[in-house]
Amino acid sequence: MKKTVFALAALSLSATAAIAVPPPAPSLEDQAEAALERDEVAWDFVEGITTEVGPRQAGTEAEKRGRDWAVRWLGSNGFTNVAVEPFEMDTWVPGDIHRARVTAPFTQDFVIQPLGNSAATPPGGLTAELVFFPTLDDLQAAPAGSLAGKIAYVSHEMRPAQDGSHYGYYGGARFVGPGIAASKGAAGIVIKSIGTDYHRNPHTGVTRFPEGVDPIPAGALSVPDAENLERMFARAGDAPVILELELNPRMIGKQQSGNVVAEIVGRNPELPPVLLACHIDSWWNSPGAFDDGAGCGIIVAAAKHATAYGRQLRTVRILMAGAEEVGLYGSIAYSAAHIDEPIAVGLESDLGADRIWRFESNFRETNPGLHAKIAKAIARFGVADSTIRASGGADLNIARDQKAAIIDLQQDGTRYFDLHHTPDDTLDKIDKAQLRQNVAVWTMVVGILANEPRSILTGGVIPSAPPVMEQ
Amino acid sequence: MKKTVFALAALSLSATAAIAVPPPAPSLEDQAEAALERDEVAWDFVEGITTEVGPRQAGTEAEKRGRDWAVRWLGSNGFTNVAVEPFEMDTWVPGDIHRARVTAPFTQDFVIQPLGNSAATPPGGLTAELVFFPTLDDLQAAPAGSLAGKIAYVSHEMRPAQDGSHYGYYGGARFVGPGIAASKGAAGIVIKSIGTDYHRNPHTGVTRFPEGVDPIPAGALSVPDAENLERMFARAGDAPVILELELNPRMIGKQQSGNVVAEIVGRNPELPPVLLACHIDSWWNSPGAFDDGAGCGIIVAAAKHATAYGRQLRTVRILMAGAEEVGLYGSIAYSAAHIDEPIAVGLESDLGADRIWRFESNFRETNPGLHAKIAKAIARFGVADSTIRASGGADLNIARDQKAAIIDLQQDGTRYFDLHHTPDDTLDKIDKAQLRQNVAVWTMVVGILANEPRSILTGGVIPSAPPVMEQ
Repeated sequence: MKKTVFALAALSLSATAAIAVPPPAPSLEDQAEAALERDEVAWDFVEGITTEVGPRQAGTEAEKRGRDWAVRWLGSNGFTNVAVEPFEMDTWVPGDIHRARVTAPFTQDFVIQPLGNSAATPPGGLTAELVFFPTLDDLQAAPAGSLAGKIAYVSHEMRPAQDGSHYGYYGGARFVGPGIAASKGAAGIVIKSIGTDYHRNPHTGVTRFPEGVDPIPAGALSVPDAENLERMFARAGDAPVILELELNPRMIGKQQSGNVVAEIVGRNPELPPVLLACHIDSWWNSPGAFDDGAGCGIIVAAAKHATAYGRQLRTVRILMAGAEEVGLYGSIAYSAAHIDEPIAVGLESDLGADRIWRFESNFRETNPGLHAKIAKAIARFGVADSTIRASGGADLNIARDQKAAIIDLQQDGTRYFDLHHTPDDTLDKIDKAQLRQNVAVWTMVVGILANEPRSILTGGVIPSAPPVMEQ
Repeated sequence: MKKTVFALAALSLSATAAIAVPPPAPSLEDQAEAALERDEVAWDFVEGITTEVGPRQAGTEAEKRGRDWAVRWLGSNGFTNVAVEPFEMDTWVPGDIHRARVTAPFTQDFVIQPLGNSAATPPGGLTAELVFFPTLDDLQAAPAGSLAGKIAYVSHEMRPAQDGSHYGYYGGARFVGPGIAASKGAAGIVIKSIGTDYHRNPHTGVTRFPEGVDPIPAGALSVPDAENLERMFARAGDAPVILELELNPRMIGKQQSGNVVAEIVGRNPELPPVLLACHIDSWWNSPGAFDDGAGCGIIVAAAKHATAYGRQLRTVRILMAGAEEVGLYGSIAYSAAHIDEPIAVGLESDLGADRIWRFESNFRETNPGLHAKIAKAIARFGVADSTIRASGGADLNIARDQKAAIIDLQQDGTRYFDLHHTPDDTLDKIDKAQLRQNVAVWTMVVGILANEPRSILTGGVIPSAPPVMEQ
């Protein structure tokens, strides 16, 4: 009986719909609120790529599987002009032997992972005295040649921070520590992971050796192991602390990587597009859920929601950069290839999946009206305005090279460096509610930008734009 | 100037002390309160053994280093009759090749660790279809022979619980799952780790193959990898999920293990002693801070505090059992060797270092006065009385075999199965404040028991005991 009533009701609704005018498109605000409540697009992307691809080391077949997966996903989700823009790059792979054993003053195996660009040890490993440097400055102060035949160990005091700023303060131990140790003659270097968690999964990441300095074996210990090593140093006093280290990473020459690009074309394709960026690669040991599957999920979800009902004046362009982790190769290649095609504004998502808390632009002084309009529109999602000048994410070289407008939607980075570049960067770490807050904020921002007829950087009139309509 | 003043003050105090009568010994309550505020003994033990020894796999030289370390520590901390009681046992070692790669429906490497008693795969590994069993009951229900040539995968729904009870509800997937799979012809088995965390460090632990059933390769996936595998099963539908598995653990024959024993002798050594137990071994992959370095630290700290000022009537005996993890060999050997030497009561600490929340005995009905006295004495530390009958920890076979009194001081197990049998069981996980609460509770309980002249189990008069004094 009930079934019949519902069937009749449905029929009645259909009949009404058939004769009524279509309902008005929901407002951009309504779209963003809907994303906050129930977006599934970002989750679909990050759940898919972590389940069906997993780790995506730059330059390897795994990264290619990641690109191919993203191309298929974009094609089946309404994006157009989906393509891979390939480029070549010198490619490093981690090998499969990663061993560290302290043999004095006590014997204990530690978990180690090589840093990107690390050299290999001799087969069978190297055994050497460890020299303790509490900070990078201490390593820097070591006399030239004083590390000959020894392995440097560098510690630091990195702590979680909402803005992730400790990565900048302490990351140098990884970014440049190995190069400094090598230049002082060290046989190798191990560092306390540039990370804030207490799990025995070391944080890898790229390091750079200066021109003319031969790479040395360079690895990261987990924080628990590094603390244990430091307790050993404290007990050893003047007696040597000895490490057996074996790593077999290697360079495998030029390999192909690529950027995945896609668009949702606007009503006026002559206007410079809004560029939304993330990166498709991850480290070999990491499924890359936070870094950066979530970021790619957020930008594609926002692109879809902000352009629903064909509301966008400008084209929204997606850049999923390749080979970000190992040296921003994709960002550099994209800028080189597209430098003559002006973009209106660039935004990137690459700090995980926790909530956005701060809005920055580089046009607060040159186009204060638009800055204020965006700030006001996203305040409802708990995002604070900021006077900090946006400088853009790693994959926005094109925006910096073109001196274009840039927006940074800063995410809560408190948990980010617990997971960054480790095997623990898995789907389960993503909080769906916070992921949706990201999508809601991005939907609002992209929707405003994609319908802005004037220059985003200056507010000036663009000749090809239609007359400005009051909103 | 200040220095002089302090020096004079110190001199003056010394002079006073020299002529004054000694201050009265602090009460047991004061000793326990002092332990709560500032015990450093338990920390000293667990910090020492994790720093200077680390993992202590049963039957290996690493376990011997653990025994030797404990013997030295006990000797230098006022214990007497410190000895190793050796025994032999069939010894399993994990090998160094632990690989799992799903190749269909998608390619992805998973982190795997062998279970204790796992067989090895053929060199180079085995490749087989995975069969999904959501629960152990589902595996049990599989028809005989239905797994021939396949690898079973068993999941479960283990969650954190204050009483750790989910280990009992779901641990069967590890305890008996491999034996069941082997008996049904499986070529191997992988299980979702018996653990409650989301880090990619699988939980190992012992499994048992029934008499007449040949062991098969058996490994644990971390929970994130197991969930990823289950997402793959959901997508695969009827298509096969294929696993390449390589493990090289092996049996290395009879090896020596041993129990470490020690005493603090009481004023009446004829009275049965109070036995405090823990275990000295850990899994090869785990420094064993929670399991069971902390437990050993707690019992030795309590033994010291409860016997300070020579207050103990009974001898307090320490048993740090060997080879607990792999089959309670030390517990069995200790009982066999000492079955004719009655103990008064047995207590064990082996659920980490978080606070004690519940007190259980097996003499609440036979000696209600003593049960109530203990319950009242430790209520101040937030410990609830319980009507649950204590059955004792794994290393208390002697107490069960002698039908002696048993006390269980139940710890908060909420975090325990995040760390249990994983590389993440490191010193940093120990909360010093909670560790001290353990020491305080144990100090009270051991102090009461060591001064109880009557039978702890029955309250009856023991002929060799001195007259009962009212307290």
